[in-house]
Amino acid sequence: MTTFTAPLRDIRFVLDEVANLGAVSALPGFEDSTGELVDSILGEAGRIAEDVLAPLNRTGDRQGARWSEGRVTTPDGWGDAWKTLIDGGWNGLAFEPEWGGMGLPNTLNVAVGELWHAANMAFGLCPLLTQGAVNALRQFGSDALKAVYLPPMVSGVWTGTMNLTEPQAGSDLAAIRTRAVPMEDGSHRLFGQKIFITYGDHDLTDNIIHLVLARLPDAPEGVKGISLFLVPKRLVNPDGSLGARNDVSCVSLEHKLGIHGSPTAVLAFGEQGGAQGWLVGEPNKGLAQMFVMMNHARQSVGLQGLAIAERAYQQARAYARDRVQGVPAGWQGTSRAAIIHHPDVRRTLMGMKARIEAMRALVYSTAAAHDRRHRHPDAKTRAEAAALEELLTPVTKGWCTETGQDIASLGIQIHGGMGYIEETGAAQHLRDARITTIYEGTTAIQANDLVNRKLLRDGGAALSAYTAEVARNADAMTASDNLHLQTLGRGLADACRSLNDMARWILKQGQHPDLTAGAAGPFLDAFGLVAGGHGLGIGARAALRRLQAGETDDGFLSAKLATAAFYAHHILCRVAAHRVTVIDGTQAIMDVDVDQL
Amino acid sequence: MTTFTAPLRDIRFVLDEVANLGAVSALPGFEDSTGELVDSILGEAGRIAEDVLAPLNRTGDRQGARWSEGRVTTPDGWGDAWKTLIDGGWNGLAFEPEWGGMGLPNTLNVAVGELWHAANMAFGLCPLLTQGAVNALRQFGSDALKAVYLPPMVSGVWTGTMNLTEPQAGSDLAAIRTRAVPMEDGSHRLFGQKIFITYGDHDLTDNIIHLVLARLPDAPEGVKGISLFLVPKRLVNPDGSLGARNDVSCVSLEHKLGIHGSPTAVLAFGEQGGAQGWLVGEPNKGLAQMFVMMNHARQSVGLQGLAIAERAYQQARAYARDRVQGVPAGWQGTSRAAIIHHPDVRRTLMGMKARIEAMRALVYSTAAAHDRRHRHPDAKTRAEAAALEELLTPVTKGWCTETGQDIASLGIQIHGGMGYIEETGAAQHLRDARITTIYEGTTAIQANDLVNRKLLRDGGAALSAYTAEVARNADAMTASDNLHLQTLGRGLADACRSLNDMARWILKQGQHPDLTAGAAGPFLDAFGLVAGGHGLGIGARAALRRLQAGETDDGFLSAKLATAAFYAHHILCRVAAHRVTVIDGTQAIMDVDVDQL
Repeated sequence: MTTFTAPLRDIRFVLDEVANLGAVSALPGFEDSTGELVDSILGEAGRIAEDVLAPLNRTGDRQGARWSEGRVTTPDGWGDAWKTLIDGGWNGLAFEPEWGGMGLPNTLNVAVGELWHAANMAFGLCPLLTQGAVNALRQFGSDALKAVYLPPMVSGVWTGTMNLTEPQAGSDLAAIRTRAVPMEDGSHRLFGQKIFITYGDHDLTDNIIHLVLARLPDAPEGVKGISLFLVPKRLVNPDGSLGARNDVSCVSLEHKLGIHGSPTAVLAFGEQGGAQGWLVGEPNKGLAQMFVMMNHARQSVGLQGLAIAERAYQQARAYARDRVQGVPAGWQGTSRAAIIHHPDVRRTLMGMKARIEAMRALVYSTAAAHDRRHRHPDAKTRAEAAALEELLTPVTKGWCTETGQDIASLGIQIHGGMGYIEETGAAQHLRDARITTIYEGTTAIQANDLVNRKLLRDGGAALSAYTAEVARNADAMTASDNLHLQTLGRGLADACRSLNDMARWILKQGQHPDLTAGAAGPFLDAFGLVAGGHGLGIGARAALRRLQAGETDDGFLSAKLATAAFYAHHILCRVAAHRVTVIDGTQAIMDVDVDQL
Repeated sequence: MTTFTAPLRDIRFVLDEVANLGAVSALPGFEDSTGELVDSILGEAGRIAEDVLAPLNRTGDRQGARWSEGRVTTPDGWGDAWKTLIDGGWNGLAFEPEWGGMGLPNTLNVAVGELWHAANMAFGLCPLLTQGAVNALRQFGSDALKAVYLPPMVSGVWTGTMNLTEPQAGSDLAAIRTRAVPMEDGSHRLFGQKIFITYGDHDLTDNIIHLVLARLPDAPEGVKGISLFLVPKRLVNPDGSLGARNDVSCVSLEHKLGIHGSPTAVLAFGEQGGAQGWLVGEPNKGLAQMFVMMNHARQSVGLQGLAIAERAYQQARAYARDRVQGVPAGWQGTSRAAIIHHPDVRRTLMGMKARIEAMRALVYSTAAAHDRRHRHPDAKTRAEAAALEELLTPVTKGWCTETGQDIASLGIQIHGGMGYIEETGAAQHLRDARITTIYEGTTAIQANDLVNRKLLRDGGAALSAYTAEVARNADAMTASDNLHLQTLGRGLADACRSLNDMARWILKQGQHPDLTAGAAGPFLDAFGLVAGGHGLGIGARAALRRLQAGETDDGFLSAKLATAAFYAHHILCRVAAHRVTVIDGTQAIMDVDVDQL
């Protein structure tokens, strides 16, 4: 009932026309990522997603990851699927050949990741976390650690985890208590309990490499006293072979609303004398280092929001094409028709499609900024790309996950009563999606990051640069001779002005952190709506250019233009309401005493 | 972890100040429903909800209703709970003493229903459906049928169901195929399969009375050939005692996303020669008669939206008061605080609270219109109340369920990672809530009912009467000397103008049913936002009047005013976006060909 088709044409369109993969491929080191290679990689990834991962999605949900006597078993077939990914070198797609990777652009890796997550989000978390751990280790690990751990983690022979949360330390990492005691041999012994550890234990690989936040004995209080440690599940001998079990144990797995196939572990470190670990990078700089992993993970979770939306949309669309019910309003003819012809179903599907395309544009553009940031020969371009990536990361994470959830819920709605029956599979997408606005920092945490670190800290400089670009593009769309593009251009110009108004208001409240924090949520959503519309408009402009150049169109290109206009009047128009909320309504948050809540 | 406190003070406030229970109690036949009786009924219902029903909510979810060899077992404790309701006469609260009821106002019954659904939504469906069946039977049943079936159904010794859906006939009831064959004794034999039958089988009572839509042999095609039949699970002897099993069997139960405690049955009629049934009302008028039951059920499902929101809000608020995490922005002091003090959490809780109060005002006002419609001595007042009830029914159902779902999802969000863990209980509220926008007619069906039957059919007369009343009240609020009330008054006046603009646009498109159907969804949401804001404003005005009259306030009354202002800037402002969508954006729904979806 739930099949998945890799949306390669849409992915390729956004890669080429919005994220500008051509320019990314021209960056030093990416010369091999030609159009032909990209085609073959996407084609093969699509095949694996459709044939290997998607069929395991429902099994994974029903069977779940299971814990018994300290051992975790993944659902049937997951071991083979992971082996398929390892054998194809997929885990190392974007890592340096030096560590066994393919050295291809992050932008392309993100497109491949969309396919994994759409096919099987619970499974996709395993490469997601492993790649994040590789990123942190690559950047901060000692040469010795890198030599031992990077090759098997890049290949996926070993997987990685991130260990932040403790029962009393969720969003508030300052409250972390796990202790690390230095030993004479330069290693450390770790003691403490970590919760919500994704793929914290499993049977896919022989070893699991935990990156763990902990405190050294003399560490300062709060976030300035947190260090990062590498703690393997099994110790590694000098020759790289596996040694004894380390003192890390999986105490239990959580019983979750969704992503049942993904083991969410409670890990106990040091119950038998201390878990052996090695400091990664400098002492007391753990949080900043973990943020390298976290920023990767945040973009990847935003990608999951897009991916689960695509999956839910495909299933709803298939059902709407199949299910015959009633005579649609305005229908030519008197016989019953598939519900896709009912105007409200069509409106709902259009709202899903338009936002999916907007999200894809945003996520892939953020990924391309990452590549420019690290590879562009020009320092100024690198700095601009860095500012852009940092600005867009919380928006990608916050907006795409909230939007993805909404779309997964609409996927149920399109099914009517059948959507509520678990066998249909539509409900699983909502259950799976529901975690995305929570893990790797809730939407509120993203909004605060956006307002405090990305807006207030530089006085609005990065935002101004971005909105100036949006406004320029909006004007160009409005100046076009295509009515659809004009519609989006005008809507985008209005929304961009509203966004700037909100930003100015927030900047003015610098002395009132309660107000800037209160305004952050609607500001983030408004930003996402604008950024998504911007990407959609860039794509629509490219579609128009190709049409005007005489390209034959089967409806795909002209749909990009009509979708852009739909987005303006059905989605982007909400920015004006957020402007009212932020500027006129923030004060009202505090007007009701907490006792009266 | 999930406790429930009956929100009696808020309920009483809305009953008195918005729904005007005083005026309802003055209607002929309701003279006994004095303030003292109302207090004691609400107090006792609150106690049952808190002590009897709420503790079974989680058990019901985990254990679920179970099917084995044709028999359905409800979760532990549900039989005793149902007996508590029967023994207290709760099921017959709003029915005539002639049938064993208490003869109290529907408005009061709705307030009691809120408590049942908030405490345990899956359980609350049983009285909901039974009362709906009683309503249909009271109005259309023959004297003979009423004499036999009404007393045990009013008391709840027997329960009732509604049987509409078949595999090929969901929203499209014209496609119903179940057959009814007339017998010589005046009864009928029914043959067919019905699906999604809530409490279609269970072990709470000795008998279940099914109201079933079916076709007579010579019936016209489509909805004009559907008749309504009463089919008991067990036949009833002339003396009222139970006879043999009828030919109705429960083939299976659905495995659903939520409301696990509520058995959703597949029922087979006539597999062994025909299920004996009796025609209710006139042949071929079954759909219109079922709509009596359906309208009751739609208002009741809107009530469920409110109730599940209240439950989710209470749980989220309790967690937010308890969970200490970080130093809130703008916090006076440096130590960590409960997350309820974080501005974004407070904003989220305020958004939940404001919409819950708006929903309660809308639902109770609709209930009061029902009482006026049936009891008011003045025919013109009755007609106005009838028009108002019919206008508000799809809004109550559509808007309160969509809003309730959103609030249940925010309840998870407030919990952070803990919200995703099933043991916490927050996720159950979303899983339970997710059916409310689907059953008894999806939101799209409500929107089409609103636009086609309630707006286009009378050329906008009922809507104009309603918005004129809203505009008058908005002006009175704006003219007040209270800044909060002014804020809502201005917002409401704007939103009401937008709503009228949308209605005029829809009325103009009378010849384009695809456009009116495409506009219906956002129009319904806009209507709900306005109607909720109107009710909130009436309450706030009453709060101001009581404050100005010198009533001592512990913060409750002044919070009503601040909440009204919050609603204006955080919620009601969305109406302007819907105006853009409806007027400028409806055409865009059809601009993308279905092949390009």
